[in-house]
Order: sequence, then C-alpha cells, then structure tokens
Amino acid sequence: MKLTFSPTSPFARKVRIAAIELGLLDRIELVAASVSPTQANEAYAHDVSPLRKLPALILDDGLVIVDSYNITEYLDELAGGGKLIPASGPARWKVKTEHAMIQGMTDAMLLARYEAALRPKEFFWKGWYDDQWDRAWQGFARFENHPDILTRPLDAAQIALVCALGYADFRFSDCGWRKAFPKLDAFHERMLQRDSVKVSLPPQA
Amino acid sequence: MKLTFSPTSPFARKVRIAAIELGLLDRIELVAASVSPTQANEAYAHDVSPLRKLPALILDDGLVIVDSYNITEYLDELAGGGKLIPASGPARWKVKTEHAMIQGMTDAMLLARYEAALRPKEFFWKGWYDDQWDRAWQGFARFENHPDILTRPLDAAQIALVCALGYADFRFSDCGWRKAFPKLDAFHERMLQRDSVKVSLPPQA
Repeated sequence: MKLTFSPTSPFARKVRIAAIELGLLDRIELVAASVSPTQANEAYAHDVSPLRKLPALILDDGLVIVDSYNITEYLDELAGGGKLIPASGPARWKVKTEHAMIQGMTDAMLLARYEAALRPKEFFWKGWYDDQWDRAWQGFARFENHPDILTRPLDAAQIALVCALGYADFRFSDCGWRKAFPKLDAFHERMLQRDSVKVSLPPQA
Repeated sequence: MKLTFSPTSPFARKVRIAAIELGLLDRIELVAASVSPTQANEAYAHDVSPLRKLPALILDDGLVIVDSYNITEYLDELAGGGKLIPASGPARWKVKTEHAMIQGMTDAMLLARYEAALRPKEFFWKGWYDDQWDRAWQGFARFENHPDILTRPLDAAQIALVCALGYADFRFSDCGWRKAFPKLDAFHERMLQRDSVKVSLPPQA
C-alpha cells in the first residue's frame, strides 16, 4: 500500500500514528506529496483525488481510499477490527462523533491558517478568521469539559485530538491552549510518551 | 430522535433522503436550526456541536451524533445494516471513498458560496473561489468518467451525489453542469423519480 503524505499535514500524521499503533507501518510506503489551495496539481487530481487533499491510501490493486477517517477504519479492520474504533454499540458512535468533531476543528484551523498566511493580505477578513478559530477553540473547550476522552485506552478520537493539538502548536504557537486547557495539556504530555506520537511531530514552523 | 435541520443544507438533505429510504423518517423529529459562519450561535455550539454545523442527530438518551456520514451509517445500522453502505469488502471502501469525495466536493462548493456571497466584496479573492469551485467541478468530471456509481442500486454515495448536484442548481444555477456532464444529468433525472429526492429539493434560490 502507498500513503500520500506530508510531515506538515495533521490528517496524514493521524494515519501514520494509527498505522504504527496497529503494527502496519511496514506494509505502507509513505509517498511525499505536495498539495495546497490555489496551486494546480493535475496529476494528483487525476490519479488520486479531485479534492487534492492528503492523505490518500492507494491499495496494491489500485483502489484509492480517502479520507483520513476512512483510511484509519480500513487499517483498523486490516489489523483485526475494533482496535482504534469500537466495533459496535454506543462507544462506537461516541468515538466516531468525537473524531468527526476533531476533524472539523482541524479543518477550521486550516481555514484560519489559509486566511492568515495563504490569502493575499488585502483580502484578509477578520470575521472569517475569528469564526474558524472559534470553532477549534470551542471544540478544545468541549473536550476539556468532557474529559473522559482523555483517559480511555487509545482510540481514533484520541489520535485525532493529539494531532489537532500538535497542529495548534505548529501553526498557532502563541494561542495559549496549554494554559487555557490544562487537562488537554496533561493528555498531550502523556500521549508524547508514545513513539508513534513523538516520531510524527510536525517540523518546527 | 431529533435531527437539526435546514432545507437549504445539502448535508441535512442527504440524511433526510437516507431516513426516508430506510423507512425511519417517522422516528425522527426535524428541528429547524440556523447556523452560518461569522454568526454566533452559543446555544448550538454548547448543546449540539462546537463546529456549529448541520445536521446533528440527537438520540433519545441525549447522545449527539455528527457528521452527516456518521448519521447515515447510524440510521443504516438501525434499519438492519448494509442497506445504503455495503457491510464489508471492496464495495464498502468504494462507497465510503466516493461518499468522502462527494462530501469534500460539497464542502468546496460551500466555501465558494461563502467567498462569493457571505464575505464582504472588498475581501473577495478570485484565486480561492476558483480553486474551491475547481475541486467540485473536477469531482463531477471524475464521476462522469467513472460512471458505475450512476447505475448501482441506491447507496449513500449516490444520495450524496444527488444532493451535491442539487446544491449546484441551488447556488450556482448557471454553472452548466448538465451540459458538461450528460451522464450525471441522466442520473439526476432518474433519482428525481424517487419521492425522497423530490420532496427534499432545496427551495428556489
């Protein structure tokens, strides 16, 4: 299998951590790919996905799997199932919902980042930036206030959360999430004891 | 169960169609909700989801399920499983990947719409608008060129596609997708013969 990958993508990092934790990393070839809004990438759009987003998993028979959640679920199934995503019952829908919220928070941080750093300065709209950032920040607050996610055995929602926090460090280093959310800080420190989390940290901004 | 809902949301429409097709609509109360970027909605952010997005399914025991794909999968399971999402094998990953692509195409159309209609005109960036629109358009082209999705028994990817096309009609009525993609046009016409699809058409723009 091949995984389109960039060390700066929080979504690619999530799949890499999942693959390591599931013992599948040696079956996956990481293929460097570069995609960015407003930059054409005809080859990626044609061969991988018209959305031009990372990551995508390309199976040996050519089947392409997007998005990062689907890839995580596919790898989980390959590893026997029910490892990072509960196989059934309320726990399943809780993890899937939390994962979707954290995915949306990460999407919102990327939109804020694009607004501040990709868009020409004269077209910057503070209302949009603040709105997207607020979605991420309110999301972190939600998990600080519903902290059972922080102490469960490892699952896909936790992996997504550590990647979202790592992205906040990478692109919004002075946002102050550690001070605002001490329970998330302690969770992040604990997660950093895992090799999978440590080895996949984003580069220095 | 309650579903937060707006007749203009392509994601809420998708869940409504799925609920009708699965025979579950009479168990779901549609609850009108209004969310829009840059408009605060503290109650929704606190009680439903910090992402402030539609739809969300609120179970009778209070558990909230987001996003629209998770809700569709939950309803599918409630109806016995394997109805709109294949239960296993390559067909499952194909439908899930196609659904994720169409979800991303619809997200891209919403971003293009926000750029053109919500953002103050002086902050409009054509590069961003064109890039988001291109993701949707290239996606439609992909399905025109890989048309097996168009003739399968009903599934979640098809429902997502009809909602994406309906959203293109609703917000980009002169984009010309019918002329560019005749196979999608024929598919859309066939889908409109279903009551679920017809009754859920977006309002006139």
